[in-house]
Amino acid sequence: MKIELENVKPQEIEKKSFEIITQELGDTPLIPGTEMIVKRCIHTSADFDYAENLCFSEGAVEKAREAIRNGVSIVTDTQMAKAGINKKTLAKYGGQVYCFMSDEDVAQTAKANGTTRATACIDKAAAMGENFIFAIGNAPTALVRLYELIQEGKIHPALIIGVPVGFVNVVQSKELIMKTDVPYIVAKGRKGGSNIAACICNALMYLDGRE
Amino acid sequence: MKIELENVKPQEIEKKSFEIITQELGDTPLIPGTEMIVKRCIHTSADFDYAENLCFSEGAVEKAREAIRNGVSIVTDTQMAKAGINKKTLAKYGGQVYCFMSDEDVAQTAKANGTTRATACIDKAAAMGENFIFAIGNAPTALVRLYELIQEGKIHPALIIGVPVGFVNVVQSKELIMKTDVPYIVAKGRKGGSNIAACICNALMYLDGRE
Repeated sequence: MKIELENVKPQEIEKKSFEIITQELGDTPLIPGTEMIVKRCIHTSADFDYAENLCFSEGAVEKAREAIRNGVSIVTDTQMAKAGINKKTLAKYGGQVYCFMSDEDVAQTAKANGTTRATACIDKAAAMGENFIFAIGNAPTALVRLYELIQEGKIHPALIIGVPVGFVNVVQSKELIMKTDVPYIVAKGRKGGSNIAACICNALMYLDGRE
Repeated sequence: MKIELENVKPQEIEKKSFEIITQELGDTPLIPGTEMIVKRCIHTSADFDYAENLCFSEGAVEKAREAIRNGVSIVTDTQMAKAGINKKTLAKYGGQVYCFMSDEDVAQTAKANGTTRATACIDKAAAMGENFIFAIGNAPTALVRLYELIQEGKIHPALIIGVPVGFVNVVQSKELIMKTDVPYIVAKGRKGGSNIAACICNALMYLDGRE
C-alpha cells in the first residue's frame, strides 16, 4: 500500500490541524471563551477527552489573561512544562517561569519533612509572596499543598492550572482545587501532564494572537 | 461530599501507580519484553490507548538497550522531550541528549530550503555521522526526513522512537518508519507527544532497574 503524504506547507500545519480539530468536534458544546484552550489541548495530545474533562471556574480565562498582561509569573512542577512554556512571549508581558524541582534546598526540605519535592516547591513559591499562576502537570501533592495554603489564607494564586496525570490522589487533588474560590482550569479525572500544563499556559498567552 | 486522599508515602506513589495500571490492564495482551515500556507510557498519560497503539519492530527493545549500554546518544525534536529524558542516567552509560530545534543554523537552513525546522534538525544530526536513537515526539516531518535518509542509505539509527502527535501527516509518517528495517517503537495513529518520547527513552534506561 502506498503511503500518501498531504502536501501542507510548514507554516500551514498548525492552521490545518486546528481546522481538523474544529471539524471533528462538530457540535460538542464548549464554554464560550474557552474554545481555543480546549482545542490547543487536543492539538497537543490528539485526545478529544479534553473536550469533556476540562473544567473552568467562572471567568478563569479572562482573569488569567489579565494577570498575564499585568506581568504575572508562572510556577510549574516539572522541567518539561517549563521547557514547553513560551518564555519569550511571557517575558514580553513581564513574567517569567519558575520550576524549583531540581533545587537542592527543595530536596532537603522534602526529605526533612517526609513530603514530595513538589510539596516543598509549593512552599518555596508561597514564601516568595507573589500571586503566581501555578501550572501543575505532574504532582497531585502540589495541588494538595496549594489547597491547604489557600484554606489557611496564605496564598492567593492568580490561577491554578490543575492537570496532574496519574493514578494516586490525582482525581481527588483536582476536586480539592475545584472547591476553592481561586480561578482554576482543571482536567477532571486522571488525565493531564506537563505537555497539557504548558499548552494551557501558551493558549492563554496566544489568545491575543499567536506570536 | 468529603474528598478522601489515599495515604501513600512519596516513595511509594510510582509503585502503587504501576500496580493499578497492571491491574486495570488485566488480560490485555502485551508483547513479552515490552510490558514496562507500555506501562510507563500509560503512567505518563493515564491513557490506556498505549496498550493498543504501541508497535515494536522485532527485537527493538533489546537492540535499544544494547545501544544504550554502549553509550548511544539521543536526538530529539523538542526541548520538552530533552527536559524529560533522564540525562544523568544516560550519561552514566556515556550518552547525551541533543535537540537542535532552537539552533540558529537550523532556523536558517529550514528557511532557505522551505522545510520545517525539524527536517533541518534531522539533516544536522545525520551530518554528525553517529548512529543515534531518534526520539520524535512532535514533528512528523522529522520522521519523513529520517525515512528518506534511511532509503538513501545515509543513516542507520540505533532506534527510532516515532511518537509525533497530531493531525497532519502524523499517521502516515509513522507508517513510513514501520516500512524500514531500522529498529523502531511507534505509537500507531495520531497519539504521542514529547512526554511519550521522553518516557520511552527513560523506560528503556530503567529496564535494568530504576536509578
